Amino acid sequence: MTEAGRHIQQAEGGGARAVARCRTLARPPYSAEPDRLLRAYLTPAHAATRARLAEWMAEAGMATRIDPAGNLIGRYAGLADGPVLLIGSHIDSVGDAGAFDGPLGVMLGIECIRALHDAGTRLPFPVEVIAFGDEEGSRFPASMLTSRAVAGALRPGDLDLADGKGTSLAAALAGFGLDAATFAQAAYPPGSVRAYFEAHIEQGPVLEAEGLALGVVTAIAGQRRLAVTLTGTPGHAGTSAMHLRRDALAAAAEAVLAVERTAQGGPPDLVATVGRLAVLPSATNVVPGRCDLTIDIRAGRDADRDEATARIVDAIRALAERRRVALAVEETQVLPASPCDPALMDRLDKAVAATGQSPRRLVSGAGHDAMVMAALAPTAMLFIRCAGGISHNPAEDVAVDDVERALRAMLLFLEGFEA
Amino acid sequence: MTEAGRHIQQAEGGGARAVARCRTLARPPYSAEPDRLLRAYLTPAHAATRARLAEWMAEAGMATRIDPAGNLIGRYAGLADGPVLLIGSHIDSVGDAGAFDGPLGVMLGIECIRALHDAGTRLPFPVEVIAFGDEEGSRFPASMLTSRAVAGALRPGDLDLADGKGTSLAAALAGFGLDAATFAQAAYPPGSVRAYFEAHIEQGPVLEAEGLALGVVTAIAGQRRLAVTLTGTPGHAGTSAMHLRRDALAAAAEAVLAVERTAQGGPPDLVATVGRLAVLPSATNVVPGRCDLTIDIRAGRDADRDEATARIVDAIRALAERRRVALAVEETQVLPASPCDPALMDRLDKAVAATGQSPRRLVSGAGHDAMVMAALAPTAMLFIRCAGGISHNPAEDVAVDDVERALRAMLLFLEGFEA
Repeated sequence: MTEAGRHIQQAEGGGARAVARCRTLARPPYSAEPDRLLRAYLTPAHAATRARLAEWMAEAGMATRIDPAGNLIGRYAGLADGPVLLIGSHIDSVGDAGAFDGPLGVMLGIECIRALHDAGTRLPFPVEVIAFGDEEGSRFPASMLTSRAVAGALRPGDLDLADGKGTSLAAALAGFGLDAATFAQAAYPPGSVRAYFEAHIEQGPVLEAEGLALGVVTAIAGQRRLAVTLTGTPGHAGTSAMHLRRDALAAAAEAVLAVERTAQGGPPDLVATVGRLAVLPSATNVVPGRCDLTIDIRAGRDADRDEATARIVDAIRALAERRRVALAVEETQVLPASPCDPALMDRLDKAVAATGQSPRRLVSGAGHDAMVMAALAPTAMLFIRCAGGISHNPAEDVAVDDVERALRAMLLFLEGFEA
Repeated sequence: MTEAGRHIQQAEGGGARAVARCRTLARPPYSAEPDRLLRAYLTPAHAATRARLAEWMAEAGMATRIDPAGNLIGRYAGLADGPVLLIGSHIDSVGDAGAFDGPLGVMLGIECIRALHDAGTRLPFPVEVIAFGDEEGSRFPASMLTSRAVAGALRPGDLDLADGKGTSLAAALAGFGLDAATFAQAAYPPGSVRAYFEAHIEQGPVLEAEGLALGVVTAIAGQRRLAVTLTGTPGHAGTSAMHLRRDALAAAAEAVLAVERTAQGGPPDLVATVGRLAVLPSATNVVPGRCDLTIDIRAGRDADRDEATARIVDAIRALAERRRVALAVEETQVLPASPCDPALMDRLDKAVAATGQSPRRLVSGAGHDAMVMAALAPTAMLFIRCAGGISHNPAEDVAVDDVERALRAMLLFLEGFEA
């Protein structure tokens, strides 16, 4: 039996345990609410979760510490010291969340170490498992605060944030025995991380549609967001002849279809969405005078996203002119794509293949801590099929078999790792 | 000089006075609000307006009375008794109303009588001018209550209505010295009205677009209203691949364009409008899972309206099926079209032509008291161009010259009337 074989044997049942633990953490005291999951950064639910995780990390053979940003880190020493391999994900949640978005990646990290530890195996370098405190941004008006602290990628003003109740980040940190003045010291020094690995539910329907348990992420999509306002002329629905109308909703409807058509005509990872559309004055018997809509455009390559954005804006400009409707377009967000490391993708492909599944590469349309951690180290991400592609919802679910397979793939990925 | 010539000379300036009086009535005490016009049925503003109108009617040579529904009626006796010619419109308003929607028709009735009276002319039959108390339905949850009382077209439950503050119609009537038990006695006996005539601002842009002051209404459009729900699957805007989406908003967008296309392809008086469209969950980064929209379809002929409705529903059914989106359609309102009297239309065409404007016939897309009064007598309606087609808005406006022309047309219409 190879060393990897031993680990994998030791790991059996680890997927089931990871799933069960995620479910445990979805209830009080690990959730702020009795019937729904809400676990925000620097709250009692966060503290309870961190304490429980620290126990599990210790059981798995790790030494634990809290960093200056409130992240929990478990360390499994290597045969030698040197740059660590970091396995991480986040343990905060959105409101009315599912159990798996975030915690599953941490549980799988713990299960990897447990399997190594139980098999008496040490890797040539230290491995650390990090449970980030804030990725979703459900408490303070910024997201990925804690991975940005770790990656040395904080932005001016991050420490001045206040939550919805007016509690500042500094005060919240103090309540956790932490000091805003040392928050940025959570940063790992450049060169101290050999790679960052994150396992996460897909949060999309692609793997399920193709009957695959696992996917290898090629990049976290770049994002552009536009706010579009179309202004026509409101009118009486009964008395405004069709040829005299300047109907803002009819213009918006064409815009929605232009967004869809553009994304459908691009590469498979290009997505574009009108998620909000508000009509004014919004009365049954009034021709709409104004529509406000949002457009969210993402692709694995920034060039694809930008080309799609240009096509969409051109199409909307043309239809607005044809319909004599005024147009205002504002860009509200631009985030560059974050490519995963090609060599790590190849390695992860092989690991997935060794579990018996054909490798499938895909772009992550959602943001993840990995996109921040790319500033610090080469990144790799493993996606796990989730039921119906649903996330941010209590219906979020994963199959235990898929999680067992993910754990095997992670152990195979670690075996002989030398990057 | 013919008799008509004398009337018309007497009428000069009557249009300007009608316009000025409408503006006077747009302020307190004739409005409930200092800076906006709101004049609801059986309120102090209604009482003040009625009292002022009664003075103007008396000055113009009429005997006035209040009917059991609270309508103000001015009577100008004829050379003989017999069925009356009734000229009417409403004096209630919507909230934040314009000055002319309703009152202008009453003022023009008064100016007609004043011109006849000043010229010492009596018609072979009595003429009455009626100022209806409720057409808009801005107080009780029903509209055209008072013309329905006059036309003998009340519905079961009309007297049980209560306003937004819980005041019943009966209590409101009692506050005006009226009795709910005799409300229905406002009805004119069958055969007692030889014709009903109503002048009204167009509330639409057609006359303005064609450079015409006046229009002859052929019918008040029939109306169907649908409530449509499209249900797809909500999804993450970044992770839901385009080909796997069931986007409720994209489906709704197609529906909006199908509604527009169907109406554009029909007769000129066919209009169809999506006035409300609500998106759920309405977040920038979530593919819409549900859209609720309203469709309002109107035409001068019920057959045209029904054919358009069927086409629209077929189109939406087809697109919902193609997009794998669930569809629910509920019919929320059906009102039959109310045709105006052909002989009266011919007579009104001639009167308009005699003022020097080519006659223009058009369908009224909005509802009016005339549609109710058609149950009692043949009806005729004269539309007056309004600025930008705007109504139900403080920007509502008419040109004095147009109103002078309308007054001349009405006097020409009355001259030698024998219907």
